[in-house]
Amino acid sequence: MIVTYIISLLLAVATAAQTTLAPPHFQASGPYAKAPGLGITIGTLPPGADDAITDVAGVRVGQVTHIEGQGRLVPGVGPVRTGLTAIIPRTDIWHKRIYAAAWPLNGNGEMTGTLWINESGWLETPIVLTDTLSVGRVDDGVISWMIKQYPGIGNTEDVPLPVVAEVNDDFLNDQAGRHNMPADAGRALDEAAAGPVAQGDVGAGTGAVALAFKGGIGTASRVLAASDGGYTIGVLVNINTFGRRQDFRIDGVPVGAEIKDLQPLEPHPQEGSIIMIVATDAPLLHDQLFDICKHAALGYARTGGSSREGSGDLILAFSTANVVPYGGKALTYTPTVLDRGNINAVFAATIEATDEAIVNALLAAQTMTGRDGNTAYALPHDRVLEIMHRYGR
Amino acid sequence: MIVTYIISLLLAVATAAQTTLAPPHFQASGPYAKAPGLGITIGTLPPGADDAITDVAGVRVGQVTHIEGQGRLVPGVGPVRTGLTAIIPRTDIWHKRIYAAAWPLNGNGEMTGTLWINESGWLETPIVLTDTLSVGRVDDGVISWMIKQYPGIGNTEDVPLPVVAEVNDDFLNDQAGRHNMPADAGRALDEAAAGPVAQGDVGAGTGAVALAFKGGIGTASRVLAASDGGYTIGVLVNINTFGRRQDFRIDGVPVGAEIKDLQPLEPHPQEGSIIMIVATDAPLLHDQLFDICKHAALGYARTGGSSREGSGDLILAFSTANVVPYGGKALTYTPTVLDRGNINAVFAATIEATDEAIVNALLAAQTMTGRDGNTAYALPHDRVLEIMHRYGR
Amino acid sequence: MIVTYIISLLLAVATAAQTTLAPPHFQASGPYAKAPGLGITIGTLPPGADDAITDVAGVRVGQVTHIEGQGRLVPGVGPVRTGLTAIIPRTDIWHKRIYAAAWPLNGNGEMTGTLWINESGWLETPIVLTDTLSVGRVDDGVISWMIKQYPGIGNTEDVPLPVVAEVNDDFLNDQAGRHNMPADAGRALDEAAAGPVAQGDVGAGTGAVALAFKGGIGTASRVLAASDGGYTIGVLVNINTFGRRQDFRIDGVPVGAEIKDLQPLEPHPQEGSIIMIVATDAPLLHDQLFDICKHAALGYARTGGSSREGSGDLILAFSTANVVPYGGKALTYTPTVLDRGNINAVFAATIEATDEAIVNALLAAQTMTGRDGNTAYALPHDRVLEIMHRYGR
Amino acid sequence: MIVTYIISLLLAVATAAQTTLAPPHFQASGPYAKAPGLGITIGTLPPGADDAITDVAGVRVGQVTHIEGQGRLVPGVGPVRTGLTAIIPRTDIWHKRIYAAAWPLNGNGEMTGTLWINESGWLETPIVLTDTLSVGRVDDGVISWMIKQYPGIGNTEDVPLPVVAEVNDDFLNDQAGRHNMPADAGRALDEAAAGPVAQGDVGAGTGAVALAFKGGIGTASRVLAASDGGYTIGVLVNINTFGRRQDFRIDGVPVGAEIKDLQPLEPHPQEGSIIMIVATDAPLLHDQLFDICKHAALGYARTGGSSREGSGDLILAFSTANVVPYGGKALTYTPTVLDRGNINAVFAATIEATDEAIVNALLAAQTMTGRDGNTAYALPHDRVLEIMHRYGR
Repeated sequence: MIVTYIISLLLAVATAAQTTLAPPHFQASGPYAKAPGLGITIGTLPPGADDAITDVAGVRVGQVTHIEGQGRLVPGVGPVRTGLTAIIPRTDIWHKRIYAAAWPLNGNGEMTGTLWINESGWLETPIVLTDTLSVGRVDDGVISWMIKQYPGIGNTEDVPLPVVAEVNDDFLNDQAGRHNMPADAGRALDEAAAGPVAQGDVGAGTGAVALAFKGGIGTASRVLAASDGGYTIGVLVNINTFGRRQDFRIDGVPVGAEIKDLQPLEPHPQEGSIIMIVATDAPLLHDQLFDICKHAALGYARTGGSSREGSGDLILAFSTANVVPYGGKALTYTPTVLDRGNINAVFAATIEATDEAIVNALLAAQTMTGRDGNTAYALPHDRVLEIMHRYGR
Repeated sequence: MIVTYIISLLLAVATAAQTTLAPPHFQASGPYAKAPGLGITIGTLPPGADDAITDVAGVRVGQVTHIEGQGRLVPGVGPVRTGLTAIIPRTDIWHKRIYAAAWPLNGNGEMTGTLWINESGWLETPIVLTDTLSVGRVDDGVISWMIKQYPGIGNTEDVPLPVVAEVNDDFLNDQAGRHNMPADAGRALDEAAAGPVAQGDVGAGTGAVALAFKGGIGTASRVLAASDGGYTIGVLVNINTFGRRQDFRIDGVPVGAEIKDLQPLEPHPQEGSIIMIVATDAPLLHDQLFDICKHAALGYARTGGSSREGSGDLILAFSTANVVPYGGKALTYTPTVLDRGNINAVFAATIEATDEAIVNALLAAQTMTGRDGNTAYALPHDRVLEIMHRYGR
Repeated sequence: MIVTYIISLLLAVATAAQTTLAPPHFQASGPYAKAPGLGITIGTLPPGADDAITDVAGVRVGQVTHIEGQGRLVPGVGPVRTGLTAIIPRTDIWHKRIYAAAWPLNGNGEMTGTLWINESGWLETPIVLTDTLSVGRVDDGVISWMIKQYPGIGNTEDVPLPVVAEVNDDFLNDQAGRHNMPADAGRALDEAAAGPVAQGDVGAGTGAVALAFKGGIGTASRVLAASDGGYTIGVLVNINTFGRRQDFRIDGVPVGAEIKDLQPLEPHPQEGSIIMIVATDAPLLHDQLFDICKHAALGYARTGGSSREGSGDLILAFSTANVVPYGGKALTYTPTVLDRGNINAVFAATIEATDEAIVNALLAAQTMTGRDGNTAYALPHDRVLEIMHRYGR
Repeated sequence: MIVTYIISLLLAVATAAQTTLAPPHFQASGPYAKAPGLGITIGTLPPGADDAITDVAGVRVGQVTHIEGQGRLVPGVGPVRTGLTAIIPRTDIWHKRIYAAAWPLNGNGEMTGTLWINESGWLETPIVLTDTLSVGRVDDGVISWMIKQYPGIGNTEDVPLPVVAEVNDDFLNDQAGRHNMPADAGRALDEAAAGPVAQGDVGAGTGAVALAFKGGIGTASRVLAASDGGYTIGVLVNINTFGRRQDFRIDGVPVGAEIKDLQPLEPHPQEGSIIMIVATDAPLLHDQLFDICKHAALGYARTGGSSREGSGDLILAFSTANVVPYGGKALTYTPTVLDRGNINAVFAATIEATDEAIVNALLAAQTMTGRDGNTAYALPHDRVLEIMHRYGR
């Protein structure tokens, strides 16, 4: 299969152009569309500069998108509508581990590496999102990339346990073909960058369907007041049919119930998944980050998410504030820890950023036709705004 | 202290009268007020006959309410604004155990007995809700009541581990006085009955404050379509400041943000708790009931619940469908189990019933003044309806 | 009921006398008997000065013992063979919280307060062990004691969630009588002291039966090498029939299988419980202390513990190394944390100290006859030594 | 790389020959060596016909072994000392799911698929053990094998989440080379068979080192009395340095402490892992199988396992007794469930079989030299027997 980078390249160009004009989070359409760009405000806290997970200093995102072929599904050949999204929490994450926690709201899915995250309390690898059947290939690609960075792995150094999380994109994609190859993981990681993050039908969200609309990657962030520490909380989600259309809400407005048309061409089971990654520079320990995972779920619920039986609703939260020592040379170390009595602002920011990230994914996604002519429609912005207005916003 | 039962007696009388007139869930005010009674519909599934946890056949509720004294707090004396709420899942729960699960959304609270529930997968005692400092006394009262029912306990029979859950009512109540006595637990259990359940400032909700309004006990239920099994899901909550006023929503409408007055007289920390008890006759195993607990949390989130640091947000779910054998006489038994592929309707019902139960608690509660003149105001129905209308409902 | 303190007073006198003669951990018999006192070495690390949980600086233990009456059981009257054992991790634990974790190896039991410990990661109350049916009364007594220490509780201060853990002593004791009263909890806490800890038929171990011998309270400690931080790990257990006689081993020698006589007079179900409390001054976080709980279980397994269905095998570990701030005045704090790469020595010490504490409980316990003439026999030291010798020790 | 099957073929031949002579569990040396074959009895319950996990009807095991090259490590080339071990719980596991549970005693490792196992309570894929860095490749191979069996996967059928568990074999093996390829997973699964199971330096245990001896695959089983249901419990382990030599015990005898020589040529970190798979035909639910996992850990502890910081001590238990329906056609189903009051015999069998499986792995393994001349020595049988005798056995 020939890997196509057209869309991601176009996005990169678009990004370069856009950033000179206006803050990306004011975009009203395209892969950088944000709720605030349409005049929709979620919550009360302000977003960061790019309203993205990359607003947390040091966090980088890289995406590889595969769109190729059309027509009838030929398993193993195409059509291809998939990709992967890599998140690097910090450069040299392997030797400068960070506190982290993972939690399944509903565990019908895979996020590798979580046994070790929840045992040690830390994260020491990048995170890569992909489709379900490619988890193994992507995991292998992360290993190759890690060995390239750290040639001592498997010899003089310990071995990594990568974090790879998936959603099932088989409504649009030839998933049995496992078109996310090991080398794609390396590319996504190599190209990971700070700054605005393309959303919608990109990376691991390329073939995602959500709430019977086109889903995919979304991101948002919130910045706390200086009196609350001035911390940034960034969320990146990959949304894929995590609930019923009728339950979908934006800021409490029943947008999903009001848009009854624009359904996928064939009856599509309303199951699926959502991956939620929360980054922050607030100095949180593992058990506090476990709480952050739960609060991401509360933000998800505000959009109407109902965590259905077939959902892999998997959440990972990490904090870049501390370096957990590598190698155990000193007996002890002294991390900085947010007093639990001051954590409510981080909770609120997590809820808001998750809520908006889900909405942003839907706002950024474009109508896409995939295997067997299956089509998922974009959430129509004009009708959203009309409905919001009708409901008093 | 003299125990006062006036309110609970009045409620019982009111119940008897009301049931002859109209289904209690159509009430628009008073302790049986329900969202549907005000024309507010939460979700799409119909409620049971009483829109209460007691719609699950066999489930009984009993409440004891203590309201006494006024003025300055004299620790150990009063004023008293507290009580307890008992739930008996089935008669002879001790010998006819039921599957159950407990889960803390945020564990800043106590629900005794959960280690055993989550180890065995079953529940074998009643559930009693009370204030934080009375947990020990109420636990002791449950033991006495159990021994009275089963004199072999501690001798020829095994010993029970009661389930007692608490919220902190010290804004209105002399909590240090621990006015919920062991005998009160026995009375609440003895008086437990089927039928409509009084809500608001009653039982363990007597002194509760929620979202800077008067909180307390709320209940609701949902009935599934026959094709989904026709099961009933009932929820009872005790809500006590589980979030910020500004986040409070009814069916997505930002009612809390719109009502900025009617604040408690003194700045009150916006911490607190919510206890959520989910009953069903759907045939669920322990691990499925664990999922039900999580879905109760999603319903809670729809009302704006943000599970703050100081919250004990504790959830217990049980199913009355099976009898887990007592005594292990036969090697094996054959419970009936809902196929996981059909559980989504139960999830949806849990979300809706929890959401409405929280709203019902606020609709039913009356303005109350307690210790030191502290006052929590009732949610004003007229303004709620006006706001709902303004937001397109 | 008249509360009898005779035994605990005698023990206190004995302690005073003994400490002037020889280190208590060299005792070969009596309530301070230790495996090393009989020439039995468990593991390779040295014990602390008293081979007790109190070797961790600041930790204090207080015990109240009730032994009264004999003959046929009259529920509610006697005979009484019970008591309680209080552990105060540090003075002013309420305002100087410590990191802690709790874990049920098998959750057929109660340890209150664990939802909050595992949510916050810290412990802020004393720990009290008692019999199953007295949990409520003892919890109430701890509340009274806390209010006495901190009169603002329930008024200007937050409310505590006590830690009360139980074993079922109904083979010897009139458990339905709940003879551990609220005031007993206060007395055990008031009398808590550093130094040697009486073991066997004392405090919450008074009526305990273990491995078909007389069980009860046991304690041991280990001190790490300076290169491993020089930390102390102390364990206190209350053992109560946590396995089958035939499985019991001391340092791998099948002592239980070799002693087939000295069985309780009537067939006694081989169920029961063990409470294990691990204290350390090693600077461990909540998630590291969770691991310590698991390692206590590994030490327990070395004695033949098989965690049977009816067992409440409950473990709590805490570290006195840090003070978790109270009141959240500063945004952050900087605890000292043991690098996970250096934790193996703490693991090994936990295993050894738990193993020895269980053996010590059996070595210290004396034959006791309780309700209905039920008798549990002491482990015979001479036969233990003979068997150990026969098996090459 | 050329894949070598020589050893596994030899083992297959040996098996065919041996089975005509004597029950394999009486072997005293070679890949079918068992503790009973040397006259060492672990516990009191009898083993099944082959003293192997395959004694549980329907369970099949297939292994692929890679041994190639010698001398200095050339990362990516060799020497190769690795392999994989596949366990198929039942034919058509995908459509005839079984109850299962997974639990990390210490989560420094990877076992994919566990989020879904612990969410649903069931297992629907085979289990494959491998080395750490090959997890991705092996996962991909399992996917390919599943698609070959069920061509609708990723199209008309749901997608599987394979279970792949690892140990780190880099002391002997060029692990960075990831020599366990996707096709190897397919071969191990295709060749999976009932009957005796080769142990020691075979499959995923090829490069394993344990307790500073040569480790690897071990298996054992226990059969309950008819009055306890007559169920079979089978355990398969892959042991890889899960503790210190000095702690190693066989039936309580300190064999490890007595054999101070035969150390690996270079100082080797005493970290590592153990994978424990427990199979049974006892009719257990998910939460009961979770308890079985814990009891496997107790068996592990009896051999001296101390679950060190660097250990991935991962446990999975499954029951073949029920079929969890696929596709959700009927609303409910009626599994057969072992009454919890009768589970103690299964607990005891799990402890014994795990304990013996670990010993068997060491008895079956042969001295092996791998990368850089690193050598792990076989546990010397004659000295074991001499020590056992000296310690009274």
